[in-house]
This record gives sequence, C-alpha cells and structure tokens, in this order.
Amino acid sequence: MNAPLAGSHKLPEIHVRAVPGALIDALRQRFGSQLSTAQIVREQHGRDESSFSVPPPDAVVFAQSTQDVADAVKLAAAHKVPVIPFGIGSSLEGHLLAVQGGISLDVSRMDQVLSINAEDLTVTVQPGVTRKALNEAVKSTGLFFPIDPGADATIGGMAATRASGTNAVRYGTMRENVLALEVVTAQGEIIRTGTRAKKSSAGYDLTRLLVGSEGTLGVITEITVKLYPLPEAVMAATCSFPTLADAVNTTIQIIQMGVPIARCELLDANTIRMVNQHSRLNLREGAMLLMEFHGSPAGVQEQVETVQAIAAELGGQTFEWANTPEERTRLWTARHNAYFAGVQSRPGCKAITTDACVPISNLATALLDSVTEAQASGLTYFLVGHVGDGNFHMGYLIDPDSASERDIAEQLNHQLVQRALQLGGTCTGEHGVGLHKMDFLVQETGSGAVAMMRTIKRALDPDNIMNPGKIFAIDNVAI
Amino acid sequence: MNAPLAGSHKLPEIHVRAVPGALIDALRQRFGSQLSTAQIVREQHGRDESSFSVPPPDAVVFAQSTQDVADAVKLAAAHKVPVIPFGIGSSLEGHLLAVQGGISLDVSRMDQVLSINAEDLTVTVQPGVTRKALNEAVKSTGLFFPIDPGADATIGGMAATRASGTNAVRYGTMRENVLALEVVTAQGEIIRTGTRAKKSSAGYDLTRLLVGSEGTLGVITEITVKLYPLPEAVMAATCSFPTLADAVNTTIQIIQMGVPIARCELLDANTIRMVNQHSRLNLREGAMLLMEFHGSPAGVQEQVETVQAIAAELGGQTFEWANTPEERTRLWTARHNAYFAGVQSRPGCKAITTDACVPISNLATALLDSVTEAQASGLTYFLVGHVGDGNFHMGYLIDPDSASERDIAEQLNHQLVQRALQLGGTCTGEHGVGLHKMDFLVQETGSGAVAMMRTIKRALDPDNIMNPGKIFAIDNVAI
Repeated sequence: MNAPLAGSHKLPEIHVRAVPGALIDALRQRFGSQLSTAQIVREQHGRDESSFSVPPPDAVVFAQSTQDVADAVKLAAAHKVPVIPFGIGSSLEGHLLAVQGGISLDVSRMDQVLSINAEDLTVTVQPGVTRKALNEAVKSTGLFFPIDPGADATIGGMAATRASGTNAVRYGTMRENVLALEVVTAQGEIIRTGTRAKKSSAGYDLTRLLVGSEGTLGVITEITVKLYPLPEAVMAATCSFPTLADAVNTTIQIIQMGVPIARCELLDANTIRMVNQHSRLNLREGAMLLMEFHGSPAGVQEQVETVQAIAAELGGQTFEWANTPEERTRLWTARHNAYFAGVQSRPGCKAITTDACVPISNLATALLDSVTEAQASGLTYFLVGHVGDGNFHMGYLIDPDSASERDIAEQLNHQLVQRALQLGGTCTGEHGVGLHKMDFLVQETGSGAVAMMRTIKRALDPDNIMNPGKIFAIDNVAI
Repeated sequence: MNAPLAGSHKLPEIHVRAVPGALIDALRQRFGSQLSTAQIVREQHGRDESSFSVPPPDAVVFAQSTQDVADAVKLAAAHKVPVIPFGIGSSLEGHLLAVQGGISLDVSRMDQVLSINAEDLTVTVQPGVTRKALNEAVKSTGLFFPIDPGADATIGGMAATRASGTNAVRYGTMRENVLALEVVTAQGEIIRTGTRAKKSSAGYDLTRLLVGSEGTLGVITEITVKLYPLPEAVMAATCSFPTLADAVNTTIQIIQMGVPIARCELLDANTIRMVNQHSRLNLREGAMLLMEFHGSPAGVQEQVETVQAIAAELGGQTFEWANTPEERTRLWTARHNAYFAGVQSRPGCKAITTDACVPISNLATALLDSVTEAQASGLTYFLVGHVGDGNFHMGYLIDPDSASERDIAEQLNHQLVQRALQLGGTCTGEHGVGLHKMDFLVQETGSGAVAMMRTIKRALDPDNIMNPGKIFAIDNVAI
C-alpha cells in the first residue's frame, strides 16, 4: 500500500508494510496485557514533537525486560515487520513515526537504575530511565549526570539520537559519555558493547556506532554512562547585550580562550519575551547569555572574572546572579521551557525547528544571517542556542494547516542549513536526522559516506525492520 | 600457500595470498619510483615493535596523495591482494605485518599540515604527520595537540589504533579528539566523515567507527583533530611512595575526587632503575607517580594542594618539582623512553607488552596482583601506567629464541587480561587488538558483538583486502 505522508513536506510517498494478523496473535500470546492495539495507545505512540502526521503503528508492545525486547524483535523479524523503539516521545525529528507501518516497542517501563558505581563514576541503567530520574537516583553519591537536552528524555532515547544540551560545552554529548551498551539486534540477539573501563582500543567502536543510530540498527536495552562529581561551587548568571552580535561574539571569545564554562546559552529579545510570559519571569528583554560556572570556589571566580571582562568589552550589562539553587533551577527550567514558551505564544501552531552546529568562529555569520532572514520572512520564530558549542535552534511557528507558512519555514530552514554546511558545520547538532534532514545528510557528508552507512544498515538489518525510513531517504522497503 | 607464523605464539597457520606479477607491473606503471620491491624496504615495512616475525610484504607503495592511495587500493582490489597501511612502524601489536601477504601502503610522505584553524581550535593534517611535527606546526598559535602515546607516532596511525597516552586522563583519547576524516574505502573510493563542528547527530558515527579500526575498513588519508589552548600554568612533579599500593591508591583518590590532573603516570622501583640507567637520571628508586597539572596559576595551585594532601596521607614523600620547561621535557622524555629503557636493560630481548585498562576502583587489584605474578615468575619486566585512566602496561622481557620464556610471558599476559576482564575492564586500553588479542576480544565483548564487527567488515570489505588477519581470528582469506 502506498500512502502519502499527510502534512509532510518534501517527503516522498512511502510504502506502508501490512502487519499480519498472525504477528498480532503471536505478540498477544507472548505479551498478553503488555500488548495494546487500542486506538488511543497507538496514536500516543504515533506522534512526537515533530510537525509530521502519519498513521499510527498497528500495535504497541510495552517491554519490561531485555528478553521482552528480544522476543518482540524476533517475532517482528519473522514477519519482516518494522519495529520502532519508543522512549518518552520527545523526538523533534519524527523518529517515532510509523512511516512504514509496524509496531511500536515502548521501553519506558524498563526504568530501573541497575547499578551505581560511584567509586568509578559510572552508572548502568535501563533505557526507560529519564535523565531527571537518573540524577535523582545518584543524588546521594555526590555525583551527577550532566547531559541535559531540555526535555526529560529517556537515557535510551538520548543515546539513540546522540543527544546533548546545555551542559555539553563542558561535559560533552552522549557520544563522549556512553561507555557501554546492551543492544538487541535486528535478529533479536542480545549483544554487549564496551566495558566500564574509561578507554579501550578493543575492536570496532560499536558503542559509538549505535549511539546516534536512531533505532535503525537495534534496540538499546542497557546503557552505562559516566558520572561527574557535583562541583564544589556553582554560579549562574544572565548577561544582557546591546545586540545579538555582541552576545554571540562574547561567546566566541569565551570558547577561544578555553574558559571551561559549564553552560553558555543564548536567547534573543523576542524569545525572552515568550519565556517571561510562559514562566512568569522578568528577564530583561534583550539579547541575553545564560551562563553557569562549575568548579572550585577560586576556579569559578577566575572563570567569572574572565567572562565578565570579555562581556564588558562587548557592551554586556552587569551580570544578574541566580544566587540560590532554587533560583538556578528556576532559570534553567525557564530556559528548557523556551520551546514550549515559543509554541504556546501562538496557540494552535506547530514548531519547525532547526539544529545547525558550526565551528565556533563561524557562529556569528551562521546565526545572525539566519535571524535576519527569519525576521524578513514575517514568520514568528524563537531562537535559543547552545552557543558555546556553536549550536543553535530556531523554531518557526507555523499554522499546521497553512501550506504557505510551512513552505516559508522550510525555505528558511533550507537556507540556514546551506549556510551552516558552507561554514563547515552540520545540519544537526543534537536532534538527529529522523525524517526531516535526510537530504541534508547526503549534502553534508557526501554520497560516499551515506553509501557506507547504508551498506552497514543493509548488512546488520537486511530486511530493514529497525525503524525503517529514518536517516536514509525512503525508497520503499529497501534501503 | 600456508605458512606458519615464525616466532609467533598461539597464532594459527595463515593463508598467504600470492601477489601476481601483473599487479606489481601495474603498480610500477602507475607509481614509478614510488614503488619499491627492494628486500630491505620490504623488510622495513614487514616489522613493527611487536615480537612477531613474519615474511615481509611483496612491495611497498609510497603514497604522496589521497589519489595515490585510492589508485593503489583500486589496483590491489582488482587482484584481491591485501593492502596494509603503514605510518611510522610504532605499532606494538603486529598491525603492520603482512600475515596474509600483500603490499604495504606507506603514507609517511603524506606529511602536510593542511589547515590550522586556530580560532576554532582545530587542525587538519595528512596521515603521515607525527604528533611532534603537528605540535611544532601549531606552536605559534598558542595551541597544542595533547594526545601523546610516547612514540612519535603518525596521526594516521594514532587514529587507526585509537591511541591515547599520558595526557588522556584530562584530554581524552583519539576517540574524543578526532572530529573528521577522509578515508579511502576498500573499493578505492574517497569518502569524508564528520565536519569541523564540535558535535553532530548527522547519521552513523563513521568517524568513530573508523578510528580504532586498525586499517581493516579503509585507509585514513586526512584527519581533523581538536587543539587546546596551551595552559597558562604547567607544573610537573614526581612523588615517591613506600609501596606500589600507596601510589596506586593515591591515584584512585585523585580521580575519584575529580581533580583535573593532566598526567598521572606510575613507574615501579624496578622500572625507575631501568629509566635512570637509560636516561641518566637520578630518580628515587621506589614506586613513583609522575604528575603534571595544567590550568590557571590558582587552579594549578589548588590541584597541587589537593593531590599533596592525598599523597601525604598515603606516605608519599615531598614532591620533587620539574621547574623549567627543559626539566619537564627531560622528565617526560625519560618516561616515554621507559619502553626502550626496559628493552635495552636486557640486550637482545623482545618485550611482550600488556595493555589492560580497568574501572579506576579496580586498579589496585588489577595492577598489584599482576606485579606479584610477574615477580614470582622470575622473568624480567617493566611496569608503566597511565594510571589516571586505569590503564597500565607491563613489558615482559624475553629472549626471542626461548620458547619457555615466551610461554611464561604469554601465561602472565593471559592471567593479567583474565583479571582485567573479570574486573570490568578491557584487554587493550590503547594499543589495539592487532594479532595478539583476537581471542581476548571475543572473550571481552562476546561472540555477538564480534559477529557484528565481522558483519560490518564483510559488508565494507567483501574481499578482505584491508589489513586482513587483524582484530578478527585468522581463518584464511575469509573473515
């Protein structure tokens, strides 16, 4: 059956594979009440934070163990039916959508923290543990897990998309922080990659091949990540600037000087206004950096003095300090809610989000030109940036029923990505390719590298059952 | 032709593939004087720092460009003849040996620093650039490349083995520091992976799949790595301890407290004696930590005070400071020469080196029990350790003509690796699998993960021409 992607933009027609009744029967026999074919459950598992709308999966399996995952994959594999791993549904790029039909494999009930190895600064969790739950579980050890994509995403989902967020400028992304995985392959076999040792040269780096593979090579069923000692001192501040360019240039200098800043986030006046309204804050409505400094008291003081000096030269106002843990939490919660603040600023809208990341020296060009274009378009937008990493997001707020608004947003995104690629950057810093950036991926890395990716996919998943239609252009069942 | 591996231990008989005269003729036509079949050149390319002895490659191509590499691989592929990339010959694990025959592809003449992007803290080099040459090239920018495996290895070789060394405890390994690659595939196609952006979620992480692939998936022809600002302050010190256990336990506490120490190296009394003799130093002959601290003057002072307090509690002597850059260079050169100091302490010997890496809390058990066993064996050995990472090396100094000494050394290595694996560690922290750790790899990661690696290898290199017989057990031509 060929079905068009309702509401999609520039996505080709796709081939939805029928899910045979025999598979549903077999799943019901194996999983009983852990299987649902209820419309509402299927619909919950057939959407994410992207702007796409497609028919939901035919069934949802709620896995409670690695063996559940292995058995579900084996049954699906026997029928060559797609399997779409599902954590908490916070993908922005359509990763969770059943674009070729199939079943959703929900791992959110696999939410156990399996072992905390505080003395090694590692923790092993099931994939359904969220980042907040993980930090709650390790709180008493004096350690924390820094990766923080905003949403309270699952660690499994974060591994699958190679997520990062506000703390990545100091602590790295999931790429740097996942040590080991347990994975169910497309054949339903359970394998392990990596160890708890900090480094290794033992064979191909399957851990990092699977981190960021968006569910297309297997289902992640266990993750070992690094933890860090809670910093002795934490200071958070906001600093307003006369222009967006001043804030961006301050960031560039902070990074080039090697200041080990923990967070360095940018919002523009327009977005601050949305955030103030949504989070009932009174942040100054101008271009603003939100910063956090971690270290010893003296180390933090040094960082602050260096950054204050840089900011002052570029017209930065006096730092406004978030002095207590509560004030810091309030500040970062507001930052994390910027996406929702944006979306709620225009009732009924959908956000089409961008995710470019460029070498730091090119950040000003990449970001400022994109803002100028967005302003000229007349479309409402928000702007947030993990600018310390050269990564920023624009969200174009469109009426989902307006083809012309969608066209304008896609055109803006297209220009933004073209610019980022020309500047030596990437089309996606942390959200993944999903449904939305398949063409950009080819443009970014070249057809040779994408051919290598597809060769690997074909070898590991010859029937293309693992989250098909993501990362690579959809050409029916084959990849 | 089946030829036994002369001098090898526990390596199966292998299948040496004949190199047809037609290939040599075609290579000569394409490469002229860049091709050598001289016995001495072949022999230079047929050995490395491992203890194995096998027949040399049939010919050596000296590539001067990526196109040279691509053309050489295409010609070899047409004849299904093995291609072994060669940098500077410093592998410890037999990576460069022509165990299945074939041609050596020497990239040492590809030694250009292609672009220094100081404002982005990145540099792009050809694979034949050595780490010292790279640091010389970027010196005027105030930046440096920290990865330092001891030998003045090529950046290409370091990427291929996922190397690390003394600075990895603070700056990470090649895994964390390679941003992008250009690679010639087994089909002779030129592809690019990654960008200069600091992070990306754009598709499979081919960069990290290729880093550490030991030449088995393609030839690395260009590498973009991160640079770091030269620290404002650098202080290096040695500290002697009453026992090896005290030195190891000091290290464990330093890491667990999150001190951002730049180098934390261990030598035992026996090895210090070898180093003193080789480098004409007067280091105190006892268990010793060699440490280096990077940061702001105040930050370094804080680190030093914390570490001094930890060391003092465990009986550490007063720190001996290397006060000038020259003194520091002398100290680290001596450390880097520990391997040669060990080998030269017993004329005519070969070293069988170990490379275990364990979670930091298990370092004392892993290391001390291995030393006890080595002492009990009566074999001469040296001990050095990147202990801040939980990684240590023993070198068993054997008479290469003595089967019984080799047996004892292999038995010690076997016990050491078994212990490391039981303690959650890896059989190789930084040297790679090569010829020597194939069985350990299966034991460490399980047959499922190794099967996945072999599936990838088979898909990307179906004729098994890229450095065959490494990483995976040799079963003739097939993998």
